[in-house]
Formats: sequence, structure tokens, C-alpha cells
Amino acid sequence: MYERSMLISEARVTPILVSDAPLLNLQGVHQPYTPRCVIEVVTEGGVVGLGETYGDREYLTALQTFAAHLPGHPVTASTRLWDLAAEILRPETVDADLLGERPDREMFGRRNLDKLHGIVVSAFEVALLDALGRTVDLPVHALLGGKLRDRVDYAAYLFYRWSEHPTSHASSDDWDAALDPGGVVRQAERMVREHGFRSLKLKGGVFPPEEEIAAVTALHQAFPDLPVRLDPNGAWSVDTGTKVAENLRDVVEYLEDPCTGTRAMAEVHRRARVRLATNMCVTTPGEIPEAFATDAVQVLLCDHHFWGGLQATQHLSAICKTYGVGLSMHSNTHLGISLAAMTHAAACAQGDLHACDTHRPWQTEDVITRPHRFDGGAITVPDEPGLGVELDREALARLHERWSGSDVRTRDDVAAMQVADPHWSMPSMPRW
Amino acid sequence: MYERSMLISEARVTPILVSDAPLLNLQGVHQPYTPRCVIEVVTEGGVVGLGETYGDREYLTALQTFAAHLPGHPVTASTRLWDLAAEILRPETVDADLLGERPDREMFGRRNLDKLHGIVVSAFEVALLDALGRTVDLPVHALLGGKLRDRVDYAAYLFYRWSEHPTSHASSDDWDAALDPGGVVRQAERMVREHGFRSLKLKGGVFPPEEEIAAVTALHQAFPDLPVRLDPNGAWSVDTGTKVAENLRDVVEYLEDPCTGTRAMAEVHRRARVRLATNMCVTTPGEIPEAFATDAVQVLLCDHHFWGGLQATQHLSAICKTYGVGLSMHSNTHLGISLAAMTHAAACAQGDLHACDTHRPWQTEDVITRPHRFDGGAITVPDEPGLGVELDREALARLHERWSGSDVRTRDDVAAMQVADPHWSMPSMPRW
Repeated sequence: MYERSMLISEARVTPILVSDAPLLNLQGVHQPYTPRCVIEVVTEGGVVGLGETYGDREYLTALQTFAAHLPGHPVTASTRLWDLAAEILRPETVDADLLGERPDREMFGRRNLDKLHGIVVSAFEVALLDALGRTVDLPVHALLGGKLRDRVDYAAYLFYRWSEHPTSHASSDDWDAALDPGGVVRQAERMVREHGFRSLKLKGGVFPPEEEIAAVTALHQAFPDLPVRLDPNGAWSVDTGTKVAENLRDVVEYLEDPCTGTRAMAEVHRRARVRLATNMCVTTPGEIPEAFATDAVQVLLCDHHFWGGLQATQHLSAICKTYGVGLSMHSNTHLGISLAAMTHAAACAQGDLHACDTHRPWQTEDVITRPHRFDGGAITVPDEPGLGVELDREALARLHERWSGSDVRTRDDVAAMQVADPHWSMPSMPRW
Repeated sequence: MYERSMLISEARVTPILVSDAPLLNLQGVHQPYTPRCVIEVVTEGGVVGLGETYGDREYLTALQTFAAHLPGHPVTASTRLWDLAAEILRPETVDADLLGERPDREMFGRRNLDKLHGIVVSAFEVALLDALGRTVDLPVHALLGGKLRDRVDYAAYLFYRWSEHPTSHASSDDWDAALDPGGVVRQAERMVREHGFRSLKLKGGVFPPEEEIAAVTALHQAFPDLPVRLDPNGAWSVDTGTKVAENLRDVVEYLEDPCTGTRAMAEVHRRARVRLATNMCVTTPGEIPEAFATDAVQVLLCDHHFWGGLQATQHLSAICKTYGVGLSMHSNTHLGISLAAMTHAAACAQGDLHACDTHRPWQTEDVITRPHRFDGGAITVPDEPGLGVELDREALARLHERWSGSDVRTRDDVAAMQVADPHWSMPSMPRW
């Protein structure tokens, strides 16, 4: 009986385009609309489990290929998704772009088949857990060993930004430009006022290091009680990274990815003795041993979208605890299904958990019926069955229609910047 | 609704005495009767979840103290048991014997408060998962990410032994003595014939290394297709361990704990390049980094009874996979509740899993209604709700009555040996 109602009868992958803000980073600027995918796993018992992940064309193809093989698979067997991914997504069956040697656009290291499997498994693992939880009337956190905290703290994710996209017919919001320390502080003031965040993070790698040091120092002076982080996405040389670290030693909670690569990170930490975090040089289990052995990373920024899902995030938290490494969460542009998943995962994570990153305040749209609200910078861990969110089918249809009527198929911050600056290209690294 | 029926209304700890065989090891011989504890966690919904663990007096006291605090705790919140243990079981509230500096009798390293917490949490975590699974009609493996295998392989756990205990009124069985290579091979033949095991393990540390080398070599000759292991419980010096490893290089699958301590293990591996396993120098997460960094251990023998339970075992399997270390399972004398728990944990374990140890074939008694049977050396992973075993209350009452009418309160292999040899004492290490 248990088996039958828990078998998957259908798995749907719906690509959508989500309004995004003109947020600046090392590679360029966020596009007016960014692709995401909503995953639905339907069981023989009639339950629908939800997931959300990247929507770029290459991933979409892999997700759809994978989804077609899911009917008949039990929602109780999420770990087996790895074997299924290895079977179905092989070098000869996936988009060659996915296995390219260039650093990928989403800033989590070089692409390879393992990472693709991680991304695909992650998306469906969340949907399986949601379906299982709904079927047996348990919140997802109860399927992960139970929540260790009732609220999960998030950080205000601050960006240098323009007030508007440089294209007509683009999405828009009511945020001001922020292109200097004053603008960044004003942005933080609004973030803190509206959402109550108690940690600040600035996306760097946009301006020369001195300007970003000034912005972070201004944040620290404006909010002396709030921890501050700076993340230039690996833009600096070891010398520059060391200098910034030494400058910000008494200001930052930790520096994120000052340099690219485990060796450079280890060297900066050795020289400056400032805590470093990464979501770039450690993005798969195979990269952990070298990074931990060389003390390159003191805080690991996990992301259930590519680590393999919520259970893999628990394993990762146990590994970090075992090795005395702190934990936080990386975020890309995302909606409420992902925020719910992140919240369940973080609620159960062991060890030294720092406030998690989230882009959510920058999104004006959502695909769930009751979008989350931050209270004191935190999200209350839901005790409803599954993830605790309901799909807003009208919103999903609308955002999918936008996708259908558009030719945007990938997130490409470089191309978006070229709209404003035709001479722009992906900076060669280290940029400074 | 979910909350109410899932709250614990009562937690029971029942000490029992179990018949045991005169199995020899480094410290002496198994007693005729050995203490275990059966854990029952009762929910407000009327469901009973089962656990089984050590029964020694000191643990019994800690388990009972802990149990008294469980009513009101949700069975969905098993990870929170760690915080509860830290609160309740503090240096000033536990038996001083538990925190002694001597190697403990159960051969898993030195005692400390962390290990006590691990043992107590483990016993109740299993019971909570069993209760949760029964409540929501899911097998425990489905609460651990789902089984990766339908059958779990176990190894024939061979022992030097006497045919009978040296005391009158002792438990007895129909096994012959095994005190030389011929006896060991005959024991293996019967184990393989009756249970179909496809891996062999000899408990060593009993006779001088040459004799044990001869026994293992005889096993390899008699069963050339079956992997063989030898485990002297850390009895040898680095020189002796290296010599044995070099002698058995082409014979053993791996050597278990040839020496005591991570440094000695690392040195043996460095010299002999033979795979080593441990359940002694790595028994808590804190011991992992040094052991892995120095390549002291190539196969980790986990034991959910002290690693923190079934979820902690999954985390451990992920850590081992991340570091390229194999996994197997350690066993003490145990009954069917523990065997069911081991089977669920092993069914879900990732990475390179070797056949697990089990003492179960040596036990003539059980506390479950349908004792397991090995088929081809394996146990089929149960798909029934919870652990998939039912408590035999008559058997439990009988074995508890035996406990009540006896003064045996700890497992003490040294004292049991002194019955036969009054001059016996715990050998000083390294013994050879």
C-alpha cells in the first residue's frame, strides 16, 4: 500500500522567466528577466511535490530528460536519484555546453558531469521530499531529523545596482541606484527597515577594491552591531585579496571568495589570518579534502541547488562540523519554493551556521500563493506538510507564458552589461 | 494534529541478560550472560518505537536518567536529542566510571562525555525513528533517504572459542571449540553452510600473531573466493602489525586495528601498504580529521550504537565517501532490534560499503517475534513500517527476569577469563 501511492506518476518541468533587478557583479549585470524552472512531481496518490532550480537552456534540457524517467520511481527513494542521474545523463546525452572548460556564468566553479548530476538530483530531491512530506503529513524538516531552530536567519544581500535596466520594456522596481558607499548604506537601511535583517553582505567585484573597502567600512560604521561580509566572486589576486583582508580585518565577519581557486584562498588566509568563505572553490564533495587540509576555507557556503539537495546539505553540515568549518548558504536569484527548501535545510543543519544569503527581497514576483515575509531578518520554519508552500498556478502560467513569448533562455550577465556598454566583456581574472 | 500524536508519552528502558557464547578475545572471554537494554518509546498516538543498546550498569543509569526527560519530546525531532543529552548528562550527573581514562571494556577507545552522549542518543534515535516510521507507515530506510540496496551483506564473525563456559549453570550452545586453524576453518564451514556468508572475519588478539596468521591463511585456502579479515583489537606493536600485514598482504581484504592509536595505525599503513580498518581509533567525529589526514584508516567500521544513530551513520557514510574511505560496520553482542537498525542504516549508506559485522549468529535468544534469518549471508531490508520488527514481550520479560535474579551488571571479559585462569589480567598493550 505504502509503495503504490508513493510512486511517481508524472514529473513536470516548467520553465519561467522571473523579473530581476539590475544588480551588478563581476561579470556584468542581472538581466531584466532571468530563467528558473519549477518542478512538479505527481504521485499515484495524487500528491504534488514542488521543486525550483536554474532555468538555463542546458539545464532545462537535462531536467526534462531526467523527468521523463521518473514515473514509477518511489518518492521515498530520493538518494537513488544519483544512480538514475548517472544512468541517464552521460557525456553523450547532455548538452556540450554543460561540460565546457570555461568558468560558468553562475559562479560556482567549472562545469562537469558531477555538477550537472548534483543540480538535477537537487531539484527533484526537494520535490520528492515535499511529496513524501505531504503524503505522510510531515514537514520536510521532520524528514531531515527535525528542526534544530524555529527560525532561520538570512542576511541582507546588498548589491551595487542601477535604478533601472538599460533596456525599454524591462522589469522595474522602486529601489534607488547604489554605486558608492552612501548608496550602499541607504540600501542597507531600507533592507533592514523592511525586513529586519541582522547580517549584511555586499556583492563586490564591481569597483576597484578601495571603493569596496570604503563601502564595507561605511556599512560597519552605520551598523556597528551587524556582521558584514564582502564577496567579490574571486576577482582579486592573492596580493590584492591579502591587502583587502588586512584592511577589513576588524570589520568583516568573513570575506567570501576574495580569489579564485583553493590554492589562492589558502594563501590569502595564511597571510592575512582573516576568515574566508567560498561557494566557488568548493562546490562538490571532491573539492572538500584539499580545501580543508590547506585551511583555504573557514566557512562553507552550501547551496542545496547544486550540492544534491536537502539531505546532502545535512551531510555537508556534518562534514563541516567534523572539520570545525562554519556553514552558511549561497543564493542565486530564486523564488519562494527555493526559499522554503533553504529554510528547511538550514533549520536542520548542525554546527556553526551563519545567516544565509538570499536574493528573495529583490524579486517582485513569486510562484507560491503566500510569498514569505522576513520577520527580524528570519523566516519561521514551517510545520505544515512538505515544504509548507502552495503553488500559485496562475502566477506559474503567467511566468511560463512570459518565457514562451521571449527568446531569453539563459542567464547571461555579460550580455546584459553589453546592452549598456558594447565594449564590455567578461573580465580576465584576477581583475584586480 | 501531527504534533500531538507524535509526542512521547513514555520512554522505557528494560535491562536484560542475554545468553552469550564463550568467545575469546584480547581481554578474555565473553561471559555466559551479557547485559543489553531494550528501549521503548511510546507516543501519545499509542505507537511504540524500539531501540536496543548496551546494558552495562553505568549506561543503564544514563539511559534511565535520559528516558525520564523524554515525555513531551516529538519523535520527529531526533537530532535535538543531542542538545537534550548535553543538558541532562553532565560530568556532575553521570557515573564517574563513564568518564574514566582507561580503555573501556567494549573496545571502542577511551571514554568521555561525548561518547556517552553518542551512546544514549543512538539508542533513543533508533526508537524515535521506529516510532515515527510506524506512525506514518514508512520503513525507517525511507526516513533516511531510501534504501540503496535491497539486501545488506554481513560477514561470518569467527571467534576462537571454547565449547563451554568454565562455570556451571552457564548458557550453552552446540558449537565446537575452535582454538587452532583447523577449528577456525570448521567454524567458518558451518557459518557459511548455515547462513551463506560470503565474507569472513576472525577476531584475533588471542594467540601469538603467527598462530593467527596461520588461521587466516587456512581460511583463505579453504575459501579462496571469500574476503577475509583479521581483528586483534589493537594488540600488536607497530613492528608486529607491519610484519603481520606484510605476511597477509595477499590474503586479507583488510586488517582491523592491528595497533592501538591513530599514529601507530598510520605507521603500519605507511610501511606495509595494506588496507586498515578501525572501530577503535576513530569512534567520534572529532577523531576523523587526524586519521584521514595521516591515512591511518582505509575502512571505517561505524557502529550506530555509539556514532549517534542511523542518521549520524548516513552522515558518516557521506564523510567517508568524500574522503575516499571505505565503510563497514562494527558489532557487539546484540539481538534483533539492533540487527534491524543496522540493516536499515547499511541499506542507505553511500560509498564503498563492505559486508557488515554481526555477532547475531552466536545468540540463541532474541526479543523480537520473528528473529532474522540470513539468506546468502544477507538480511533483506524490511519495507514494513519502522524497523520492521515486533517486540516479543514474553521473551523480554523472561530476559529481564534473568537480569533481576542475577548480579551480572556489566560485561567484563577479563573477569570471565579469571574464572578459568585466576592469574589472568587485562594484557598490557601492545601485547605482541
